[in-house]
Amino acid sequence: MSIKDKLSEAYAPVVPSFIAQILKVATDPTIISFAGGLPNPMSFPVEDFKVSLNRIVDEYGPALFQYGNTAGLKAFREYLADKHSKETGIPFTYENVLIVTGSQQALDLIPRIFINKGDTIIVERPSYLGAFQAFDQYQPSYLTVDLNEDGLDLEQLEQVLSTSNAKFMYLIPSFQNPTGLTYSDENRVKVREILSRYDVFLVEDDPYGDLRYEGKKPENIGLGHLKNSCVLGTFSKVATPGARVGYVISEDKEFIHYLTMAKEASDLHSNILVQAMLLDYLKNNDQPAHVQKITELYKTQAHAMMDAMDEFFPDGVTFTHPQGGMFIWVTLPEGVSSIKLIDRALARKVMFVPGDPFYLGEHDTNKMRMNFTNADIPTIREGIKRLGEAIREEMAACGLE
Amino acid sequence: MSIKDKLSEAYAPVVPSFIAQILKVATDPTIISFAGGLPNPMSFPVEDFKVSLNRIVDEYGPALFQYGNTAGLKAFREYLADKHSKETGIPFTYENVLIVTGSQQALDLIPRIFINKGDTIIVERPSYLGAFQAFDQYQPSYLTVDLNEDGLDLEQLEQVLSTSNAKFMYLIPSFQNPTGLTYSDENRVKVREILSRYDVFLVEDDPYGDLRYEGKKPENIGLGHLKNSCVLGTFSKVATPGARVGYVISEDKEFIHYLTMAKEASDLHSNILVQAMLLDYLKNNDQPAHVQKITELYKTQAHAMMDAMDEFFPDGVTFTHPQGGMFIWVTLPEGVSSIKLIDRALARKVMFVPGDPFYLGEHDTNKMRMNFTNADIPTIREGIKRLGEAIREEMAACGLE
Repeated sequence: MSIKDKLSEAYAPVVPSFIAQILKVATDPTIISFAGGLPNPMSFPVEDFKVSLNRIVDEYGPALFQYGNTAGLKAFREYLADKHSKETGIPFTYENVLIVTGSQQALDLIPRIFINKGDTIIVERPSYLGAFQAFDQYQPSYLTVDLNEDGLDLEQLEQVLSTSNAKFMYLIPSFQNPTGLTYSDENRVKVREILSRYDVFLVEDDPYGDLRYEGKKPENIGLGHLKNSCVLGTFSKVATPGARVGYVISEDKEFIHYLTMAKEASDLHSNILVQAMLLDYLKNNDQPAHVQKITELYKTQAHAMMDAMDEFFPDGVTFTHPQGGMFIWVTLPEGVSSIKLIDRALARKVMFVPGDPFYLGEHDTNKMRMNFTNADIPTIREGIKRLGEAIREEMAACGLE
Repeated sequence: MSIKDKLSEAYAPVVPSFIAQILKVATDPTIISFAGGLPNPMSFPVEDFKVSLNRIVDEYGPALFQYGNTAGLKAFREYLADKHSKETGIPFTYENVLIVTGSQQALDLIPRIFINKGDTIIVERPSYLGAFQAFDQYQPSYLTVDLNEDGLDLEQLEQVLSTSNAKFMYLIPSFQNPTGLTYSDENRVKVREILSRYDVFLVEDDPYGDLRYEGKKPENIGLGHLKNSCVLGTFSKVATPGARVGYVISEDKEFIHYLTMAKEASDLHSNILVQAMLLDYLKNNDQPAHVQKITELYKTQAHAMMDAMDEFFPDGVTFTHPQGGMFIWVTLPEGVSSIKLIDRALARKVMFVPGDPFYLGEHDTNKMRMNFTNADIPTIREGIKRLGEAIREEMAACGLE
C-alpha cells in the first residue's frame, strides 16, 4: 500500500508548498527572482563568525558539543532577556526566553500547545504563508482581520474578538510579510486596548523590526504591556538565516514552560554551537552598526525597486512604500490575476510570489509579493522592466489598456 | 485566564518529563549520576571539529550562512545515501535521505504524517521514553510486544499485527534503550518475515548500532529488505550530540517527501553549519578509528559497571550484559519498586532512571536503567557500591534479605 493511504487527516490534503515550488523555479540562475525572502549574502559577517567560532571552541571546549538544555544556552537567553528588558522596562530573566530553530519552529510549537481541531486562530488578511503551513497541521479554524495602510481594521478586530473564542491571534506588526506594511503607533495603542479586554493570547512576530530604513522603531503591541502575549525574534534577517536561531520571549513564564515541553518532544534542543557563535559575535562586534549597514543596503535596493516600478509598471498598478523589511506588495488593477501572470513572467525570465497563498481560500487575487533584498540594482531595474511588460500584456488580455 | 485553561487536548495532560526532572537532580555535581544518556565528552573530536569549521567557512563562504534546502545539505545526504548503499546493496540517492535536528525530530515528524487521534502505534515493551513523549502529542493508541533476551516475542508480534490496523511500528533493535538488548540475527529474520506479510510501516531507530564492543554488526530488519520502512540515524553518539544532527533514510521516496513537507512546516530546515562541519569531519578523518576508540572506552566502563554490580548488588538482582551501546537494564527482585528506591539512592548521592517511564501505564516496576558512558571507573565502582546499599535497604524494607 502507498504511503498516501496511511496519511493522517492533517497531512492527507497537504501539497508541496507553493513557495517551495516557486523557489525551485527561482533557483534557475537565468531567472531574475523577486520571489524568495532571502537576505543578501553580502550582509553575513562571515569573517566575524569565523573569529567567534574559533573563540568559542577554545572557550567552551567539549561542552560545546555535548547535549544541552531544551530551552537553549543560558547565557544567550540572559542576553536576550536583558535586551528586551532595556526595550520594555520589564525585568525579564532567562526563564522568559526559549531558543527555537528559527521562528518557524515557534509557529509550529505554539498551535501545538493551544489548538484542538476546529479551535480558532485570528490572523491578518493577508498574512505569512509559512505561518499557515505550520498552523494548518493542527486543523484550526481561521478568522481574519483586514490589514490597512496604518494597521489592523479596528472595527473588524473588535467584531471577531467579541464573536469568537479564539485561542490566539497572530500578527506581524512591522514590515509585514507579505505587504511590507507597519502598524502606526496610534493603531498599536488601539489594538492593545482592544486585546486587553479579551482573553486571547497575542503572538507578535517581529523578524524584520530591526531592518528599519527611516523613522523610529515603534513599541511592541504586547510585550511590555500585555502579559498574555509573546514576541518571536530571529537572527535570520540581521545575522544569518542558515544558523536557524530564533527565540520566543513572553512575560508569562507558564507559557514558556509549556512551549519548552513541546520543544523537548520535538527535537530535545536546538544546536548549541550556533547559539554560542551568535552570542560571542553579538558581544564582540558592533551589531547596531552592522544592522545599519544592512538597512542602508536594503534601503537603496527598496528605492531602486520603487523607482523602477514608477517607471516601468503601467498606470493602475499600485504598491506599498515600506520603511523597512524585505517586501513590497503590488496591487494590479481590479480583475487582473497575479497567478495568471506567472507564465508571462517566466517567459521573460522573471519571478515573484502571487498573492493567493497569503490569503485563506481566496483565488486569483490581484496581489504580488516582491522581494528586493537579494538582487543588485541593475538586476532590479531589468527585472521590473520585464515584469512591467508581462503585466501590460496580461492587462491587455483582460481588455485593459 | 491562565495558559493552563487554554491548552490543547494533547498538551493539557502533559507534565514535565520524568527524565527532565531526574536530569535536573543529576546536575548536582555531588551526585554520582547513572541517569543520563550522555556520551563521554572525552569522545568529542573537538580539535578536528575546529579544523573542519575553519575549512568550511573558507570553502563555502556566505552560502554556509544562507537559507538552505529543507531536506538538508545535498552533499551530506549523498554521503549518507552512499554509506547505506554500501551496507545494504540498495542504490540510495540523496532523495532517500532527510536531515533532521537529531533523531528526536524524526520521532516527532513521523507520527505527524501518519497518526490521527486513536490510531495504533506498535512499540517494544519496554521502549524509549523520548519516543513516547513525541508520539503522545498525536494521541495514539499503543500496542506493545515484549522484548526478550534475543529480540521480539514473535508470537505476540504476529498477534498484535493480525488483530490491529497499526500505522507504524517503532523498534530499537540494537543496544536498545532502555534495556541494552540486541535482537539476534535469527530474530531479525523472523521479525522481517512477519512484517513483510502486513501493511505496517517499520521505524527502526539505530542510535547505538556503531557502538559495538564485540561481535559483528547485524543487518537492519527493514532497510535493504522492506521498502515499507526507514532507519533513523544520528551523529549524537559517535561524534557530537550538541550539533543535533540526525537523519532518516528510506527506500520509499514518497515517505521522505511527506516527511520533508512536515519538516518544512516545523523549522524550514536544520542548521547548515554543523551539517557541513560533520561532512567535512567525516571525509577528512578516520571516523571508524575514532568510533573504535569510543567503543574501547565504553567497553571498559560497561565491564567496570557489570563487575561492580556482581560485587556490590545483593543476590536476586540481575542485569543485562550488553555488547555495545550505553545502558544496562537492572531487574530487582519481584515486588521491589525502583521508584521507591529513588529516595534511598539520593540519600547516598547516587542516581539512576527507574523503569516506569519506559512502560505504558505500568507502575512500581522492578527495573532500572543504568548509563555507564559518562563516569570514570572509580566513580562507577563507588556509585554501584552506594546503589547496592540502597537496594539492600529497600529489599529489607520489603521483607527480603
